[in-house]
Amino acid sequence: MALTQEQTRDIEVVRARSAETRRPTVAALEAILAQPIQVLDHGFIRVVDYMGDDAAVVQAARVSYGHGTKHVRQDTGLIRYLMRHRHTTPLEMCEIKFHVKLPIFVARQWIRHRTANVNEYSARYSILDQEFYLPAPEQIAVQDTNNRQGRAGAVPPEQAARILALLRQDAETAYAHYQRLLGLDDPDHTGAESGALARELARLNLPVSFYTQWYWKIDLHNLLHFLALRTDAHAQYEIRAYAEAILDVVRRWVPTVFEAFRDYRQGAVTLSAPAMAVVRRMLAGETVDAASSGLSVREWQELMTALAPPQV
Amino acid sequence: MALTQEQTRDIEVVRARSAETRRPTVAALEAILAQPIQVLDHGFIRVVDYMGDDAAVVQAARVSYGHGTKHVRQDTGLIRYLMRHRHTTPLEMCEIKFHVKLPIFVARQWIRHRTANVNEYSARYSILDQEFYLPAPEQIAVQDTNNRQGRAGAVPPEQAARILALLRQDAETAYAHYQRLLGLDDPDHTGAESGALARELARLNLPVSFYTQWYWKIDLHNLLHFLALRTDAHAQYEIRAYAEAILDVVRRWVPTVFEAFRDYRQGAVTLSAPAMAVVRRMLAGETVDAASSGLSVREWQELMTALAPPQV
Amino acid sequence: MALTQEQTRDIEVVRARSAETRRPTVAALEAILAQPIQVLDHGFIRVVDYMGDDAAVVQAARVSYGHGTKHVRQDTGLIRYLMRHRHTTPLEMCEIKFHVKLPIFVARQWIRHRTANVNEYSARYSILDQEFYLPAPEQIAVQDTNNRQGRAGAVPPEQAARILALLRQDAETAYAHYQRLLGLDDPDHTGAESGALARELARLNLPVSFYTQWYWKIDLHNLLHFLALRTDAHAQYEIRAYAEAILDVVRRWVPTVFEAFRDYRQGAVTLSAPAMAVVRRMLAGETVDAASSGLSVREWQELMTALAPPQV
Amino acid sequence: MALTQEQTRDIEVVRARSAETRRPTVAALEAILAQPIQVLDHGFIRVVDYMGDDAAVVQAARVSYGHGTKHVRQDTGLIRYLMRHRHTTPLEMCEIKFHVKLPIFVARQWIRHRTANVNEYSARYSILDQEFYLPAPEQIAVQDTNNRQGRAGAVPPEQAARILALLRQDAETAYAHYQRLLGLDDPDHTGAESGALARELARLNLPVSFYTQWYWKIDLHNLLHFLALRTDAHAQYEIRAYAEAILDVVRRWVPTVFEAFRDYRQGAVTLSAPAMAVVRRMLAGETVDAASSGLSVREWQELMTALAPPQV
Repeated sequence: MALTQEQTRDIEVVRARSAETRRPTVAALEAILAQPIQVLDHGFIRVVDYMGDDAAVVQAARVSYGHGTKHVRQDTGLIRYLMRHRHTTPLEMCEIKFHVKLPIFVARQWIRHRTANVNEYSARYSILDQEFYLPAPEQIAVQDTNNRQGRAGAVPPEQAARILALLRQDAETAYAHYQRLLGLDDPDHTGAESGALARELARLNLPVSFYTQWYWKIDLHNLLHFLALRTDAHAQYEIRAYAEAILDVVRRWVPTVFEAFRDYRQGAVTLSAPAMAVVRRMLAGETVDAASSGLSVREWQELMTALAPPQV
Repeated sequence: MALTQEQTRDIEVVRARSAETRRPTVAALEAILAQPIQVLDHGFIRVVDYMGDDAAVVQAARVSYGHGTKHVRQDTGLIRYLMRHRHTTPLEMCEIKFHVKLPIFVARQWIRHRTANVNEYSARYSILDQEFYLPAPEQIAVQDTNNRQGRAGAVPPEQAARILALLRQDAETAYAHYQRLLGLDDPDHTGAESGALARELARLNLPVSFYTQWYWKIDLHNLLHFLALRTDAHAQYEIRAYAEAILDVVRRWVPTVFEAFRDYRQGAVTLSAPAMAVVRRMLAGETVDAASSGLSVREWQELMTALAPPQV
Repeated sequence: MALTQEQTRDIEVVRARSAETRRPTVAALEAILAQPIQVLDHGFIRVVDYMGDDAAVVQAARVSYGHGTKHVRQDTGLIRYLMRHRHTTPLEMCEIKFHVKLPIFVARQWIRHRTANVNEYSARYSILDQEFYLPAPEQIAVQDTNNRQGRAGAVPPEQAARILALLRQDAETAYAHYQRLLGLDDPDHTGAESGALARELARLNLPVSFYTQWYWKIDLHNLLHFLALRTDAHAQYEIRAYAEAILDVVRRWVPTVFEAFRDYRQGAVTLSAPAMAVVRRMLAGETVDAASSGLSVREWQELMTALAPPQV
Repeated sequence: MALTQEQTRDIEVVRARSAETRRPTVAALEAILAQPIQVLDHGFIRVVDYMGDDAAVVQAARVSYGHGTKHVRQDTGLIRYLMRHRHTTPLEMCEIKFHVKLPIFVARQWIRHRTANVNEYSARYSILDQEFYLPAPEQIAVQDTNNRQGRAGAVPPEQAARILALLRQDAETAYAHYQRLLGLDDPDHTGAESGALARELARLNLPVSFYTQWYWKIDLHNLLHFLALRTDAHAQYEIRAYAEAILDVVRRWVPTVFEAFRDYRQGAVTLSAPAMAVVRRMLAGETVDAASSGLSVREWQELMTALAPPQV
C-alpha cells in the first residue's frame, strides 16, 4: 500500500490535529480518522470526515413524531424499528467521506451507486503510478459453471503462479510502453520522437487492473444499500473486500445502526406471497414437496435454501 | 419564534457540549451551532451539523490533479477558478444540516430541490401548534401586472390592516375547528361526539400559512444552486428571507466559497451567442439599436438591462 | 371531476390522434391514453405518455448477459427472477408520464419521492379553482389509538355529516376571501381597496384540502417503489386511492412486471435473521413461544402476524 | 462497426415494425430509429426509444401557468424563454434511450453523469469481443503544455504509425492472453491447465481501450447538460465524438429545443459581476486595460478571449 509523500504528510497533519467542536463526535471513529486501512494488495480506504452518529438518526426520526411520542421509545428500539420497517430517511441524516484507492475494474462496479459524491484522480491531468492489482494466489479460481458471474474453486498453486506471471508481465509491459509514450524514458527529447504523447491518449493501453483513487462521500442510507449489495456472496471478491472494510468502519461509527443492519438486512430473507403460503402449510403440519408447493422449480429451490439451517 | 421546551433543552445541551475532533472545524460556525436564527414571524433556521470547510473543497479538487499541480495554485485562486468554470463536484464534498421551521407554502417551493435529505414533522402522527404566517404590513402588496408571478407596491396601511385581520381570523377559525375535530375542546369525551377525528383528517382545513418543521441536509454545490435561485429577485419574498439567512451561514462556514459565489454566480450575467455578437459590435464602435441587433424585442430588452449600470 | 374546457379539448385531440411508430407500443395502454380516471371527489390521473413495455425490461437485462444466455431464459421467467432478486436497473428502462389532479396534502406526501420529474400548477402565476377535497362520509373516522398515524372506525353518519358541513363551510369561506383579496368580487376596482392582492399572498389562507395539478414522470423501478409504499395499508387512504389507480395502469402497461410485483413485492414478507431462526426451529417440530424465541415482544408479534393466514 | 448477428436481426425487426399510437411522434427520429450511427472506429449510438417532442416541453411549462397565459405566447418563444432563463424542469418531460458501444475509458467519463439509467454489458457474465479503440493517425497528438488535460498538435505520420503499432500490439497480446486464460485456445481442456479462469478475473489485463456496450436512458434536461459539457472543446476528443453524434439526434428529435440550446447554451458566455463592470466601462467609452480592470490576470485573459471575435 504505497502512499505518496504528500499523502503521508497530510495524514500526519490530520492525526496531530485537535479542535473543539459542539458537533456529535464518535471517539471510536476519531481513533482511526485519516488512517489508511489496507484492502487488496495496493488499495486502501480511509475515513476523511463524517457527520452524525446513532443519535442523529434518532433525532431525525423524532422530528416526524413531534411532541407526541418522545417518552415511549428507547433509542435502540427506535433504530431497530426503523431498520426492520425500512423507514430509511432518518439514516440519510448521517454522512461519511472516504479516500479510496482501488483498481479500475472495481471502480467501474462501485460507481454504479449513483447517489454519492465523487472526485477521482484524472489520468488526463496526471500520470498514473505503476500500481496494478494482482490477486493473491488462493484467489485465482476457475469459472463457476452454475453461477455465470462467479468463480468456483482455486486452481492448483503451479497454475496460479503461471497465471500471475502472465498478468504481471502484461501489466509491466503496458506500463513500460505508457512511460515510453509519455516520453519519460527520454526526458530531454533527444530521441527520434517529437515529444510526449498526450496523457489522455498514452493511458489507452493500461489494463483495468491499474489502481485509481477517489474521494467518495455518501449518506448512511445509501451506504448501507451499497454494503448490502457489495458484502453479498454474489458480489465479486475484490469489491467485497472493500465493502467488508467499510462495514467495519460503520461498526465503529454507528454501532446501533450496524447491529440493526446485521440482524434485519444482511441476515434477512424475503419470502414471496406464494412462498409464505407454503411455509404456513408446513407449520400447520402439512407435508409439502416441490410438486404440491405451487412454486416453480427455481423458487422451490430458493425456498429450501432459505429454510435450511445456515452453514457454519 | 416559539421553541418547544424540549427544543430549548436540546439547544442548551448542544451549546454546552464540547468534544475533541480531528475533523475540519470552522470556529465561526461553531459559534452559532444549534442557535435558532429567526426568519419571518415564527420561523427559524439553525445549523445542526456540518462537514468540511473551504479547504475540503480544495482537497477534493486536488485529488483530480494528483501529484502534478499542487505547487502552482493557491487555495483561493483554485476555489475561484472552480466557481467561475462551474467545476462543481468538489463543492459536493461539504455538507450541512439545518433544522428549519417554515410555512407550508414555503415548504412546497423548497422541496422542489430534490437533491437533499429531509425529515419533516408529520401531521399524521402529531398535532400542529397554532402558528401561522402573517406577512408584515409592508409586505402586503398588489399583484405585479408585468411579472405574472410577483408582487408590486405595498397597499396603504389601512388596507393592509384589513387584509391582515381577515387572514388572522380565517387561520384562527381553522385552528379552533381543528382542535374541535381532534376532540381537544372535550378531552373527556363527555359530549355528543364519538371521539377524536383522525389527525390525518382533522388537518384538512388548515391553511398553507401554518408552520411545519424539518431537518434538511444538503451538499454545498446543491445548496449554492438553491441559494442562486432563491435569493433571486424573482423568488417569492418569504422563501428569499430563508435563503438570505442561509447565505449568511454560508458566509461564516466557507468564506472563500461565499465570495466566489457572490462574484461569479450571484452577480454573473449569461449572454447568448447573438447577444455577445451585439456587444462585440458595440465595443468595435458600431451603434447598434434594437432593429439592427438581430435580437428579438424581449432579448434586446434583456440585453439593455444587463448592460445598464446596476441600480444602487 | 371538473376538467377545464381547454383540457377537454386537448384530450379530444389526443384521442383522435393516430401516428405510425416503430417504438414498442402497448394496445391496452393506448386504449386509455389521455383519458382521465377519477380519484377521490375532484381528482384524476391520466396517462400522458409512456416509453417501453415488458419486452424493454428484458432487452435491458439481456445487454448485461451479452451473447451468452439469450437462449436459456424465457422472458416471463427473467422478469420474475429480476423482481425476486431485486435486480432493479432494467426496470428503469421504462418510463411513464401522468397528469394528476390531487389535494395539496396528498401532493405533499407524493413529492417526497424524489426520483421523478414534476411540473406543478403555480398559484403564484394563476388563480386556483374552487375545488377542495371532502372525504366520503364513510371515510370520516376516529384516530387509531394503536397506530399513531392511522384512522380507525368510521364515526356515526350524523357526526360525519356535522364534520363534513364544518369542513365545507371553512373551505368555502376561505375561497370567498381568496376571491375578495384577489379583487374578483370587484373587478372594476370601484371599491375602497387599492387593487388585487398579489396571487402569491392571496392564497395564504387556502387549506391543504384544495386541489392542485401536476405532470409527473417517473421510471418503472421508482414507480413500483412508490406503489409498494403507497398501496400499503399504512399509507393514508387518500394517497392510496391514487396509488391503486396507478397500479391498475401498470397492470395494463406491463402485465408481466405487474404480476411479478404482486407476487414478490406486495405480498412478500421479509424475515430477519433471528425470525428465520425461529421459523426453522418450528419447522423442525419444536414448540416456540415468545419467551423462548429470543425475539423482542414487538418482533414476536410481527412474526406471528406474518405467519398467520392472511385474512380474507 | 461490428454488430452481432443477433443485434442485426433485432434492428431489422424494429425497422420493419409499425404500430399505431396516440403518443407524440417525431417523423425525423422514427426515420433513424434503431439504426446504428458510427462513432470512432468500432463504436456506435442508436436510438432505441423516445418520449415526447418540442410540444411536450411547452405542455409541461404551461401547466404551471394554468388557464392564465396560454394565448399570449408562441411555442417557439416559450421554449427559447425557458432555455434563456434556465427554467429546466419542462425539459425533463422528454426522455430518450440509446444503445451505445464505446471504449471503457470513454464509459468512465460518461458514467459521471449520474442522473441517467444504465444497463451495461457485464464482463463477469460474458466474454468481451476483440474490439479495441485505435485513434485515427491524425488524432495522435502531443501533450498540450498549457492545458494540462488536453492534447496539442498531431505528431508526424511516421511517429503516429509507430505509436499505433505499439497500441495495437499490446491490445492484441492482452486479448490473446485473455482467451488463453479463459481456456478458449484449448476448448477440450486437454492441456496442462485445470480449466477456464473465471471471467471476472480473466479480464483483468484488458486495456481501457476495449469496447463495452450499454443501454442509456436520460431526460432531455440532463442530456443537454451532458452535451453542453461533452461537446465543449475541453472535453476529450473521443467522448466529444459521441456527444456530437447525439446532438445531431437531438436536432432531429426536438428542433426548437436544439436551436435554443445552440443559441443560449453552447454559444453563451457567462460574465462575472466584475467582468460586467469592465464591459460597462468600455461601452461608456473608457479605455480599460488589465491593470485598471480590477480583474486578476487570468480573469482578464478570459474576458479578452470572450470579447474577441470568434475564430472561423
